Amino acid sequence: MNPRLAVILLLATAAANGATADDPNYTPDGKLKPPADYREWIFLSSSLDMSYRKRGDMMGHSMFDNIFVDPASYREFVKTGTWPEKTRLVMEMRGATKKGSINQHGRFQSGEPMGVEVHIKDSARFPGGWAFFAFGGAEPAQQIPTGADCYSCHQEHGAVNTTFVQFYPTLLKIATEKKTLSPNYHP
Amino acid sequence: MNPRLAVILLLATAAANGATADDPNYTPDGKLKPPADYREWIFLSSSLDMSYRKRGDMMGHSMFDNIFVDPASYREFVKTGTWPEKTRLVMEMRGATKKGSINQHGRFQSGEPMGVEVHIKDSARFPGGWAFFAFGGAEPAQQIPTGADCYSCHQEHGAVNTTFVQFYPTLLKIATEKKTLSPNYHP
Repeated sequence: MNPRLAVILLLATAAANGATADDPNYTPDGKLKPPADYREWIFLSSSLDMSYRKRGDMMGHSMFDNIFVDPASYREFVKTGTWPEKTRLVMEMRGATKKGSINQHGRFQSGEPMGVEVHIKDSARFPGGWAFFAFGGAEPAQQIPTGADCYSCHQEHGAVNTTFVQFYPTLLKIATEKKTLSPNYHP
Repeated sequence: MNPRLAVILLLATAAANGATADDPNYTPDGKLKPPADYREWIFLSSSLDMSYRKRGDMMGHSMFDNIFVDPASYREFVKTGTWPEKTRLVMEMRGATKKGSINQHGRFQSGEPMGVEVHIKDSARFPGGWAFFAFGGAEPAQQIPTGADCYSCHQEHGAVNTTFVQFYPTLLKIATEKKTLSPNYHP
């Protein structure tokens, strides 16, 4: 066989198998593996001590959240204003430090991640289209049960396709231009 | 000529010419063009309202700084713990917003960038090795004069090669392991 054709067939087979049990992102029992290279993905935004509850729930801790998306899904969003299948959004939490080196005011990020969460779109695998996973380290994680608040809150308030694009300024601009904002979304 | 050899020679010539007037990042009169695609570079960290002065100088504004580096220089840092020639670090400033959508606490980023600064390493072009440029929009910028505070402060306090790696947690870990921290650096 022509080697180029063989490569194309191999890629096509891999794409067709994406949502089945041999997806390399999952363990055979359906746990998601933490993405190893998300720090080299596309950065969407960061925030400090955000909370959607009236009463803050930081328990004295101060944290930055950094949001990343896999590059292929980012490029698709730039073209279309919404997310393709296999989109992986990562939220990484890092301690917000006041004192260090020559800093006098404000807060900077320091130390190891305090947690990593993934929001993944895979309609063939998850009945609602999207699923959340929370990681404490390098171990694969079970899906967060679909009764958890994160699902209903993202569904009700996410500006685009159940995601909080309202907090990612470069994507909000694109979604506004492409008219892909959810009718539920209120700025 | 063997076409592959021709390509190699072309690349070698381009590399040798990197610091001359035909570098596409500069205008013929030596202004730096703002990098168009830095939001797709590697994210290093973000901070909120940091200041190195005893008295804050935010004048009532609250801002996030997002730091990015070009991917080739990032990969070199991961290997060596320091920056190669042509490194471009970008600091993007964005407004820190409290009220919006369902947010109740903390701050998130919103709106257009409030400014973009570049720290670039190019020893053939700049006597001190590095230069700073500040952009207000799409126009090329003159180098910030070398008498400005940013040069002396980065020189005295930058953890690696005059850059504030002490505020980029993933790189600080690498520099510590590779023993490339400046003797001037105090955590």
